[in-house]
Amino acid sequence: MNTEARSYHHGDLRAALLQAAQAELAEKGVEALTLRGIARRAGVSHAAPANHFSSLAALLSELAAIAFERLATAIRSECADETPGTTAHLIACAQGYVAFARANPALFRLMFRHERLDPMHARAVNAARDAFALPVTAVAALTGDTDPMDSPAPQAAVIALWSLTHGFAELLIQGQFDHLTGDDRDAWVHATIHRLIARSFPEAEERKPDA
Amino acid sequence: MNTEARSYHHGDLRAALLQAAQAELAEKGVEALTLRGIARRAGVSHAAPANHFSSLAALLSELAAIAFERLATAIRSECADETPGTTAHLIACAQGYVAFARANPALFRLMFRHERLDPMHARAVNAARDAFALPVTAVAALTGDTDPMDSPAPQAAVIALWSLTHGFAELLIQGQFDHLTGDDRDAWVHATIHRLIARSFPEAEERKPDA
Repeated sequence: MNTEARSYHHGDLRAALLQAAQAELAEKGVEALTLRGIARRAGVSHAAPANHFSSLAALLSELAAIAFERLATAIRSECADETPGTTAHLIACAQGYVAFARANPALFRLMFRHERLDPMHARAVNAARDAFALPVTAVAALTGDTDPMDSPAPQAAVIALWSLTHGFAELLIQGQFDHLTGDDRDAWVHATIHRLIARSFPEAEERKPDA
Repeated sequence: MNTEARSYHHGDLRAALLQAAQAELAEKGVEALTLRGIARRAGVSHAAPANHFSSLAALLSELAAIAFERLATAIRSECADETPGTTAHLIACAQGYVAFARANPALFRLMFRHERLDPMHARAVNAARDAFALPVTAVAALTGDTDPMDSPAPQAAVIALWSLTHGFAELLIQGQFDHLTGDDRDAWVHATIHRLIARSFPEAEERKPDA
Protein backbone atom coordinates (compact mmCIF):
# COMPACT_ATOMS: atom_id res chain seq x y z
CA MET A 1 0.00 0.00 0.00
CA ASN A 2 1.71 3.14 -1.15
CA THR A 3 -1.01 5.70 -0.56
CA GLU A 4 -1.56 7.12 2.86
CA ALA A 5 -4.85 6.21 4.46
CA ARG A 6 -6.16 9.74 4.83
CA SER A 7 -8.99 8.67 7.06
CA TYR A 8 -6.57 8.63 10.04
CA HIS A 9 -6.78 11.63 12.31
CA HIS A 10 -3.41 12.83 13.56
CA GLY A 11 -3.62 11.09 16.95
CA ASP A 12 -5.21 8.00 15.48
CA LEU A 13 -2.37 7.54 13.02
CA ARG A 14 0.12 7.79 15.87
CA ALA A 15 -1.77 5.12 17.82
CA ALA A 16 -2.08 2.97 14.70
CA LEU A 17 1.68 3.16 14.12
CA LEU A 18 2.40 2.15 17.73
CA GLN A 19 -0.03 -0.75 17.42
CA ALA A 20 1.53 -1.85 14.13
CA ALA A 21 5.00 -1.60 15.69
CA GLN A 22 3.90 -3.80 18.57
CA ALA A 23 2.51 -6.41 16.17
CA GLU A 24 5.70 -6.35 14.05
CA LEU A 25 7.80 -6.64 17.20
CA ALA A 26 5.88 -9.67 18.46
CA GLU A 27 6.03 -11.36 15.07
CA LYS A 28 9.56 -10.58 13.86
CA GLY A 29 11.61 -9.38 16.83
CA VAL A 30 13.31 -6.05 17.36
CA GLU A 31 16.21 -6.63 14.93
CA ALA A 32 13.85 -6.97 11.97
CA LEU A 33 11.86 -3.81 12.77
CA THR A 34 11.94 -0.88 10.32
CA LEU A 35 9.84 2.30 10.11
CA ARG A 36 8.99 1.26 6.54
CA GLY A 37 7.72 -2.14 7.65
CA ILE A 38 5.68 -0.56 10.43
CA ALA A 39 4.13 1.92 7.97
CA ARG A 40 3.30 -0.94 5.60
CA ARG A 41 1.61 -2.88 8.37
CA ALA A 42 -0.40 0.19 9.43
CA GLY A 43 -1.46 0.64 5.80
CA VAL A 44 0.07 4.11 5.42
CA SER A 45 2.78 5.60 3.22
CA HIS A 46 6.37 5.00 4.22
CA ALA A 47 6.71 8.73 4.85
CA ALA A 48 3.86 8.81 7.38
CA PRO A 49 5.84 7.70 10.51
CA ALA A 50 8.15 10.73 10.15
CA ASN A 51 5.21 12.98 11.07
CA HIS A 52 5.09 11.37 14.50
CA PHE A 53 8.48 9.81 15.21
CA SER A 54 11.87 11.28 14.37
CA SER A 55 13.48 7.84 14.18
CA LEU A 56 12.90 4.16 14.79
CA ALA A 57 14.57 4.61 18.19
CA ALA A 58 12.00 7.31 19.06
CA LEU A 59 9.13 5.00 18.15
CA LEU A 60 10.64 2.04 20.03
CA SER A 61 11.25 4.26 23.08
CA GLU A 62 7.60 5.26 23.05
CA LEU A 63 6.70 1.54 22.98
CA ALA A 64 9.15 0.90 25.82
CA ALA A 65 7.54 3.72 27.81
CA ILE A 66 4.11 2.15 27.31
CA ALA A 67 5.61 -1.19 28.38
CA PHE A 68 7.14 0.26 31.56
CA GLU A 69 3.80 1.90 32.40
CA ARG A 70 2.10 -1.46 32.05
CA LEU A 71 4.82 -3.10 34.15
CA ALA A 72 4.27 -0.50 36.89
CA THR A 73 0.52 -1.19 36.78
CA ALA A 74 1.11 -4.95 36.96
CA ILE A 75 3.42 -4.59 39.97
CA ARG A 76 1.12 -2.15 41.79
CA SER A 77 -1.94 -4.30 41.27
CA GLU A 78 -0.18 -7.38 42.69
CA CYS A 79 1.20 -5.41 45.64
CA ALA A 80 -2.00 -3.57 46.56
CA ASP A 81 -3.02 -5.91 49.36
CA GLU A 82 0.43 -6.50 50.87
CA THR A 83 2.11 -4.80 53.79
CA PRO A 84 5.38 -2.98 53.06
CA GLY A 85 8.33 -4.50 54.89
CA THR A 86 7.14 -8.08 54.52
CA THR A 87 8.45 -10.90 52.35
CA ALA A 88 4.90 -11.17 50.96
CA HIS A 89 5.25 -7.64 49.58
CA LEU A 90 8.43 -8.57 47.69
CA ILE A 91 6.80 -11.77 46.43
CA ALA A 92 3.90 -9.69 45.10
CA CYS A 93 6.34 -7.35 43.29
CA ALA A 94 8.00 -10.36 41.66
CA GLN A 95 4.63 -11.89 40.71
CA GLY A 96 3.68 -8.62 38.98
CA TYR A 97 7.01 -8.45 37.12
CA VAL A 98 6.78 -12.04 35.90
CA ALA A 99 3.07 -11.73 35.01
CA PHE A 100 3.89 -8.73 32.81
CA ALA A 101 6.76 -10.61 31.10
CA ARG A 102 4.52 -13.64 30.43
CA ALA A 103 1.72 -11.49 29.01
CA ASN A 104 4.04 -9.28 26.90
CA PRO A 105 7.20 -11.23 26.02
CA ALA A 106 8.16 -9.10 22.99
CA LEU A 107 7.66 -5.80 24.86
CA PHE A 108 9.52 -7.24 27.86
CA ARG A 109 12.55 -7.95 25.67
CA LEU A 110 12.37 -4.53 24.00
CA MET A 111 12.40 -2.68 27.33
CA PHE A 112 15.85 -4.05 28.08
CA ARG A 113 17.44 -3.50 24.68
CA HIS A 114 19.10 -0.20 25.55
CA GLU A 115 21.08 -0.02 22.32
CA ARG A 116 17.81 0.21 20.36
CA LEU A 117 16.23 2.92 22.54
CA ASP A 118 16.71 6.64 23.06
CA PRO A 119 18.27 6.96 26.58
CA MET A 120 16.87 10.50 26.98
CA HIS A 121 13.27 9.66 26.09
CA ALA A 122 11.47 11.42 28.95
CA ARG A 123 8.35 9.28 29.07
CA ALA A 124 10.36 6.04 29.01
CA VAL A 125 12.80 7.28 31.68
CA ASN A 126 9.95 8.34 33.96
CA ALA A 127 7.97 5.17 33.35
CA ALA A 128 11.00 2.98 34.14
CA ARG A 129 11.68 4.93 37.34
CA ASP A 130 8.03 4.57 38.33
CA ALA A 131 8.00 0.81 37.64
CA PHE A 132 11.04 0.17 39.82
CA ALA A 133 10.10 2.57 42.65
CA LEU A 134 7.80 0.08 44.36
CA PRO A 135 10.21 -2.92 44.38
CA VAL A 136 13.11 -0.71 45.50
CA THR A 137 10.98 0.70 48.34
CA ALA A 138 9.83 -2.82 49.22
CA VAL A 139 13.45 -4.00 49.53
CA ALA A 140 14.27 -0.94 51.65
CA ALA A 141 11.31 -1.63 53.94
CA LEU A 142 12.33 -5.28 54.38
CA THR A 143 16.03 -4.59 54.93
CA GLY A 144 15.20 -1.65 57.19
CA ASP A 145 17.32 0.74 55.18
CA THR A 146 16.10 4.17 54.11
CA ASP A 147 18.02 4.34 50.85
CA PRO A 148 18.57 0.91 49.35
CA MET A 149 21.14 2.23 46.85
CA ASP A 150 23.12 3.94 49.60
CA SER A 151 25.06 1.28 51.45
CA PRO A 152 26.71 -1.79 49.95
CA ALA A 153 24.48 -4.48 51.42
CA PRO A 154 21.06 -3.13 50.38
CA GLN A 155 22.38 -2.37 46.91
CA ALA A 156 23.28 -6.05 46.67
CA ALA A 157 19.73 -6.86 47.86
CA VAL A 158 18.20 -4.72 45.09
CA ILE A 159 20.47 -6.29 42.46
CA ALA A 160 19.67 -9.74 43.87
CA LEU A 161 15.90 -9.15 43.72
CA TRP A 162 16.04 -7.76 40.20
CA SER A 163 18.47 -10.39 38.87
CA LEU A 164 16.51 -13.26 40.41
CA THR A 165 13.14 -12.00 39.17
CA HIS A 166 14.41 -10.93 35.75
CA GLY A 167 16.35 -14.15 35.20
CA PHE A 168 13.38 -16.30 36.21
CA ALA A 169 11.03 -14.28 33.94
CA GLU A 170 13.45 -14.48 31.03
CA LEU A 171 14.12 -18.23 31.36
CA LEU A 172 10.40 -18.87 31.87
CA ILE A 173 9.24 -17.05 28.72
CA GLN A 174 12.01 -18.85 26.79
CA GLY A 175 10.38 -22.13 27.80
CA GLN A 176 13.31 -23.38 29.91
CA PHE A 177 10.99 -24.61 32.67
CA ASP A 178 8.25 -26.05 30.42
CA HIS A 179 9.19 -29.61 31.38
CA LEU A 180 8.79 -28.80 35.09
CA THR A 181 5.50 -26.94 35.20
CA GLY A 182 3.00 -29.79 34.96
CA ASP A 183 -0.56 -29.25 33.74
CA ASP A 184 -1.28 -26.08 35.68
CA ARG A 185 1.49 -23.78 34.52
CA ASP A 186 0.03 -20.70 36.20
CA ALA A 187 -0.02 -22.43 39.58
CA TRP A 188 3.56 -23.71 39.13
CA VAL A 189 4.82 -20.24 38.20
CA HIS A 190 3.02 -18.64 41.12
CA ALA A 191 4.28 -21.19 43.66
CA THR A 192 7.84 -21.13 42.28
CA ILE A 193 8.09 -17.33 42.48
CA HIS A 194 6.81 -17.54 46.05
CA ARG A 195 9.51 -20.05 47.00
CA LEU A 196 12.32 -18.30 45.12
CA ILE A 197 11.69 -14.95 46.78
CA ALA A 198 10.95 -16.40 50.22
CA ARG A 199 14.22 -18.38 50.18
CA SER A 200 16.27 -15.32 49.13
CA PHE A 201 14.35 -12.72 51.15
CA PRO A 202 13.16 -14.25 54.43
CA GLU A 203 11.35 -12.04 56.94
CA ALA A 204 13.54 -9.50 58.74
CA GLU A 205 13.63 -11.41 62.03
CA GLU A 206 14.88 -14.54 60.24
CA ARG A 207 17.51 -12.77 58.21
CA LYS A 208 21.21 -12.86 58.81
CA PRO A 209 23.24 -9.79 57.94
CA ASP A 210 24.73 -9.79 54.44
CA ALA A 211 28.19 -11.26 54.21
CA MET B 1 30.52 -12.27 -4.55
CA ASN B 2 28.56 -14.76 -6.53
CA THR B 3 31.22 -17.33 -7.31
CA GLU B 4 32.13 -19.91 -4.74
CA ALA B 5 35.64 -19.59 -3.38
CA ARG B 6 36.86 -22.96 -4.53
CA SER B 7 40.00 -22.75 -2.46
CA TYR B 8 38.02 -23.83 0.62
CA HIS B 9 38.44 -27.44 1.59
CA HIS B 10 35.25 -29.10 2.79
CA GLY B 11 35.98 -28.71 6.52
CA ASP B 12 37.43 -25.25 6.07
CA LEU B 13 34.28 -24.00 4.36
CA ARG B 14 32.22 -25.34 7.22
CA ALA B 15 34.42 -23.55 9.75
CA ALA B 16 34.37 -20.37 7.62
CA LEU B 17 30.55 -20.43 7.54
CA LEU B 18 30.36 -20.85 11.32
CA GLN B 19 32.79 -17.99 11.77
CA ALA B 20 30.83 -15.77 9.37
CA ALA B 21 27.60 -16.67 11.19
CA GLN B 22 29.14 -15.66 14.50
CA ALA B 23 30.24 -12.31 13.05
CA GLU B 24 26.80 -11.68 11.52
CA LEU B 25 25.17 -12.63 14.81
CA ALA B 26 27.32 -10.22 16.82
CA GLU B 27 26.72 -7.41 14.35
CA LYS B 28 23.05 -7.79 13.44
CA GLY B 29 21.39 -10.04 16.00
CA VAL B 30 19.70 -13.37 15.51
CA GLU B 31 16.52 -12.03 13.87
CA ALA B 32 18.47 -10.57 10.94
CA LEU B 33 20.45 -13.75 10.25
CA THR B 34 19.97 -15.59 6.94
CA LEU B 35 21.92 -18.41 5.29
CA ARG B 36 22.31 -16.12 2.27
CA GLY B 37 23.79 -13.31 4.37
CA ILE B 38 26.17 -15.75 6.06
CA ALA B 39 27.29 -17.10 2.67
CA ARG B 40 27.86 -13.55 1.42
CA ARG B 41 29.98 -12.73 4.46
CA ALA B 42 32.03 -15.90 4.02
CA GLY B 43 32.57 -14.97 0.38
CA VAL B 44 30.92 -18.08 -1.03
CA SER B 45 27.90 -18.74 -3.24
CA HIS B 46 24.48 -18.64 -1.59
CA ALA B 47 24.15 -22.36 -2.34
CA ALA B 48 27.31 -23.28 -0.42
CA PRO B 49 25.81 -23.46 3.11
CA ALA B 50 23.41 -26.22 1.99
CA ASN B 51 26.39 -28.55 1.61
CA HIS B 52 27.02 -28.30 5.34
CA PHE B 53 23.80 -27.22 7.05
CA SER B 54 20.30 -28.37 6.19
CA SER B 55 18.75 -25.16 7.50
CA LEU B 56 19.50 -21.93 9.32
CA ALA B 57 18.31 -23.64 12.53
CA ALA B 58 20.89 -26.40 11.99
CA LEU B 59 23.67 -23.85 11.58
CA LEU B 60 22.52 -21.83 14.61
CA SER B 61 22.28 -25.01 16.69
CA GLU B 62 25.87 -25.83 15.79
CA LEU B 63 26.85 -22.33 16.96
CA ALA B 64 24.83 -22.84 20.15
CA ALA B 65 26.62 -26.15 20.72
CA ILE B 66 30.00 -24.42 20.37
CA ALA B 67 28.75 -21.74 22.78
CA PHE B 68 27.63 -24.30 25.39
CA GLU B 69 30.99 -26.06 25.08
CA ARG B 70 32.75 -22.74 25.76
CA LEU B 71 30.38 -22.06 28.66
CA ALA B 72 31.24 -25.45 30.16
CA THR B 73 34.95 -24.69 29.78
CA ALA B 74 34.50 -21.25 31.40
CA ILE B 75 32.61 -22.76 34.36
CA ARG B 76 35.07 -25.63 34.81
CA SER B 77 38.11 -23.36 34.69
CA GLU B 78 36.64 -21.05 37.38
CA CYS B 79 35.65 -24.00 39.56
CA ALA B 80 38.89 -25.95 39.26
CA ASP B 81 40.37 -24.76 42.56
CA GLU B 82 37.19 -24.86 44.66
CA THR B 83 35.91 -27.56 46.97
CA PRO B 84 32.51 -29.07 46.08
CA GLY B 85 29.89 -28.41 48.76
CA THR B 86 31.10 -24.90 49.55
CA THR B 87 29.59 -21.52 48.77
CA ALA B 88 32.91 -20.66 47.07
CA HIS B 89 32.26 -23.45 44.57
CA LEU B 90 28.88 -21.98 43.63
CA ILE B 91 30.38 -18.50 43.40
CA ALA B 92 33.02 -19.87 41.00
CA CYS B 93 30.29 -21.47 38.84
CA ALA B 94 28.49 -18.11 38.68
CA GLN B 95 31.74 -16.26 37.88
CA GLY B 96 32.34 -18.63 34.97
CA TYR B 97 28.78 -18.22 33.66
CA VAL B 98 28.93 -14.42 33.81
CA ALA B 99 32.45 -14.28 32.36
CA PHE B 100 31.25 -16.29 29.37
CA ALA B 101 28.23 -13.99 28.87
CA ARG B 102 30.42 -10.86 29.04
CA ALA B 103 32.95 -12.26 26.56
CA ASN B 104 30.30 -13.63 24.13
CA PRO B 105 27.08 -11.57 24.49
CA ALA B 106 25.66 -12.48 21.07
CA LEU B 107 26.34 -16.21 21.51
CA PHE B 108 24.95 -16.01 25.06
CA ARG B 109 21.65 -14.65 23.72
CA LEU B 110 21.53 -17.21 20.91
CA MET B 111 21.90 -20.16 23.30
CA PHE B 112 18.64 -19.23 24.98
CA ARG B 113 16.59 -18.55 21.85
CA HIS B 114 14.97 -21.98 21.69
CA GLU B 115 12.57 -21.01 18.93
CA ARG B 116 15.52 -20.43 16.57
CA LEU B 117 17.30 -23.70 17.38
CA ASP B 118 16.80 -27.36 16.57
CA PRO B 119 15.73 -28.98 19.89
CA MET B 120 17.07 -32.39 18.77
CA HIS B 121 20.54 -31.19 17.75
CA ALA B 122 22.66 -33.83 19.50
CA ARG B 123 25.85 -31.82 19.96
CA ALA B 124 23.93 -28.81 21.37
CA VAL B 125 21.85 -31.00 23.71
CA ASN B 126 24.97 -32.77 25.02
CA ALA B 127 26.93 -29.53 25.36
CA ALA B 128 24.10 -27.86 27.30
CA ARG B 129 23.82 -30.85 29.62
CA ASP B 130 27.58 -30.79 30.16
CA ALA B 131 27.63 -27.04 30.90
CA PHE B 132 24.93 -27.34 33.56
CA ALA B 133 26.20 -30.56 35.15
CA LEU B 134 28.79 -28.83 37.32
CA PRO B 135 26.50 -26.08 38.77
CA VAL B 136 23.72 -28.63 39.40
CA THR B 137 26.19 -30.92 41.20
CA ALA B 138 27.55 -27.95 43.14
CA VAL B 139 24.04 -27.05 44.37
CA ALA B 140 23.45 -30.67 45.32
CA ALA B 141 26.72 -30.79 47.25
CA LEU B 142 25.90 -27.58 49.13
CA THR B 143 22.29 -28.52 49.91
CA GLY B 144 23.37 -32.06 50.82
CA ASP B 145 20.94 -33.62 48.40
CA THR B 146 21.92 -36.40 46.01
CA ASP B 147 19.51 -35.44 43.23
CA PRO B 148 18.79 -31.72 43.20
CA MET B 149 15.86 -32.14 40.79
CA ASP B 150 14.28 -34.77 43.00
CA SER B 151 12.70 -32.98 45.95
CA PRO B 152 10.94 -29.62 45.85
CA ALA B 153 13.46 -27.57 47.85
CA PRO B 154 16.65 -28.38 45.89
CA GLN B 155 14.80 -27.85 42.61
CA ALA B 156 13.98 -24.35 43.88
CA ALA B 157 17.67 -23.94 44.75
CA VAL B 158 18.74 -24.88 41.22
CA ILE B 159 16.16 -22.52 39.70
CA ALA B 160 17.25 -19.79 42.13
CA LEU B 161 20.94 -20.18 41.25
CA TRP B 162 20.26 -20.22 37.53
CA SER B 163 17.75 -17.34 37.60
CA LEU B 164 19.98 -15.17 39.80
CA THR B 165 23.10 -15.80 37.71
CA HIS B 166 21.34 -15.60 34.36
CA GLY B 167 19.41 -12.45 35.30
CA PHE B 168 22.56 -10.74 36.59
CA ALA B 169 24.50 -11.71 33.44
CA GLU B 170 21.69 -10.55 31.16
CA LEU B 171 21.18 -7.20 32.92
CA LEU B 172 24.94 -6.68 33.11
CA ILE B 173 25.60 -7.19 29.38
CA GLN B 174 22.64 -4.89 28.66
CA GLY B 175 24.49 -2.15 30.54
CA GLN B 176 21.91 -1.85 33.37
CA PHE B 177 24.63 -1.64 36.02
CA ASP B 178 27.06 0.58 34.09
CA HIS B 179 26.35 3.54 36.41
CA LEU B 180 27.24 1.44 39.46
CA THR B 181 30.45 -0.24 38.41
CA GLY B 182 32.98 2.56 38.86
CA ASP B 183 36.32 2.61 37.05
CA ASP B 184 37.23 -1.01 37.59
CA ARG B 185 34.27 -2.84 36.07
CA ASP B 186 35.87 -6.28 36.29
CA ALA B 187 36.44 -5.89 40.03
CA TRP B 188 32.87 -4.64 40.56
CA VAL B 189 31.41 -7.57 38.64
CA HIS B 190 33.57 -10.06 40.48
CA ALA B 191 32.72 -8.64 43.92
CA THR B 192 29.02 -8.32 43.14
CA ILE B 193 28.70 -11.93 41.97
CA HIS B 194 30.48 -12.98 45.16
CA ARG B 195 28.01 -11.08 47.34
CA LEU B 196 24.91 -12.10 45.36
CA ILE B 197 25.70 -15.81 45.57
CA ALA B 198 26.95 -15.67 49.17
CA ARG B 199 23.76 -13.91 50.31
CA SER B 200 21.51 -16.44 48.52
CA PHE B 201 23.64 -19.54 49.17
CA PRO B 202 25.31 -19.28 52.56
CA GLU B 203 27.41 -22.21 53.81
CA ALA B 204 25.41 -25.29 54.83
CA GLU B 205 25.89 -24.75 58.58
CA GLU B 206 24.45 -21.23 58.29
CA ARG B 207 21.51 -22.18 56.13
CA LYS B 208 17.93 -22.43 57.24
CA PRO B 209 15.77 -25.06 55.60
CA ASP B 210 13.79 -23.83 52.59
CA ALA B 211 10.35 -22.50 53.42
